[in-house]
Amino acid sequence: GHYIICGFGRVGRNVANELTTTHRHYVAIDADEAAMEAQRERLPGLVYLGGDASDDDLLISAGIMDAQGVFAVTGDDSRNLMIVFTAKQLNPNIRIVARCHEVRNAEKLRKAGADSVISPDFTGGMRIASSMIRPHVVSFLDEMLRSELKLRLEEIRVPDNFEPRALDTLRLRSPNYVLLAVRKDGEVVFNPTKEFMLAPGQLVIAMASPLGRQELENALLPD
Amino acid sequence: GHYIICGFGRVGRNVANELTTTHRHYVAIDADEAAMEAQRERLPGLVYLGGDASDDDLLISAGIMDAQGVFAVTGDDSRNLMIVFTAKQLNPNIRIVARCHEVRNAEKLRKAGADSVISPDFTGGMRIASSMIRPHVVSFLDEMLRSELKLRLEEIRVPDNFEPRALDTLRLRSPNYVLLAVRKDGEVVFNPTKEFMLAPGQLVIAMASPLGRQELENALLPD
Ligand SMILES: [Ca+2]
Ligand SMILES: [Ca+2]
Repeated sequence: GHYIICGFGRVGRNVANELTTTHRHYVAIDADEAAMEAQRERLPGLVYLGGDASDDDLLISAGIMDAQGVFAVTGDDSRNLMIVFTAKQLNPNIRIVARCHEVRNAEKLRKAGADSVISPDFTGGMRIASSMIRPHVVSFLDEMLRSELKLRLEEIRVPDNFEPRALDTLRLRSPNYVLLAVRKDGEVVFNPTKEFMLAPGQLVIAMASPLGRQELENALLPD
Repeated sequence: GHYIICGFGRVGRNVANELTTTHRHYVAIDADEAAMEAQRERLPGLVYLGGDASDDDLLISAGIMDAQGVFAVTGDDSRNLMIVFTAKQLNPNIRIVARCHEVRNAEKLRKAGADSVISPDFTGGMRIASSMIRPHVVSFLDEMLRSELKLRLEEIRVPDNFEPRALDTLRLRSPNYVLLAVRKDGEVVFNPTKEFMLAPGQLVIAMASPLGRQELENALLPD
């Protein structure tokens, strides 16, 4: 499945970058076609549609009926609300993440159907404060992101057809990831032991490169 | 020591919130005194000065000579550059964190003396993308910090009197930490192999509880 990015300003373009880096497909929608065309050099695979992303027909053209998720990330909270509302009506099962400026609008965006609402001013402020008071942690995470390996915290869902097995029988060892935890029934088991029984529906949390993520996914496939 | 927040818009106010939450003191500087006065109800301890934060006298009045850090977080990159430059001249040892809009200005801010440069549009975009493609990871880090174990990313310095040894001879295994990387000559070696030679001055990076951190520190002491 692909993603739809509604709003292709600075924030939308950073979302696009991250999707590109992690090998995911997307369609961008923005009224400013010239601005999108100008990104083609930096984002060679860019597919975009010009127009208002809260327009049903445009969202349908962008493939909302079989998309995996919609980003409502214009710089305008009311427009984002309209996009969330329209997207939810067209495809109630789709995952929707919205951007918001004013904290007081977050709840409305959630009520309209956003699964997650994020304010760059808030997360940026937190990050700026952390970088002052916990400098090493932020710099490590930044370096990991920027490094050749492009390491990230990743979660991999144990597939439904996975036969439960003790963790050490899977031989989850690679230079490309480090296993951190397993999420089980909403609870996090940090640093699980060799005897830990991995089962369908659990989430494996690891620090991994894109290759490492692939390796982990493959390791969880049935033989 | 206290902190100085230059620029008290949405980002600056979120920095202030985080400092307040973690029981740290600060002085805010912004030209818009009315806007700061309006925050008094939400931030009862707020101390502020009205004016241009790149003005030497104002930074001196805010106590830059014995402050612990300066935040240059106005919405204008050139103004932030001027603040960084002025702060660095007045107190070369102070830690400075700057906000930037345009990625191309980040390097200039660093050259002017910023120890760390953060773009809310970038970090917000990353967070928005993560919230779509790795919804549990974001909550994982939050939960880890809040959980009983109080896990965080930690750095442990290998002591000067440590005799270089291959990593696996140290048997660094515990339920209380997961080894992630070693920082060596400014470079990060992710997921080091068993044969990796640990030596004085290197930094071991791990996700650890306070107990795990202690265990790691003890493991690196000479026999
Ligand atoms: Ca915002
Ligand atoms: Ca910005």
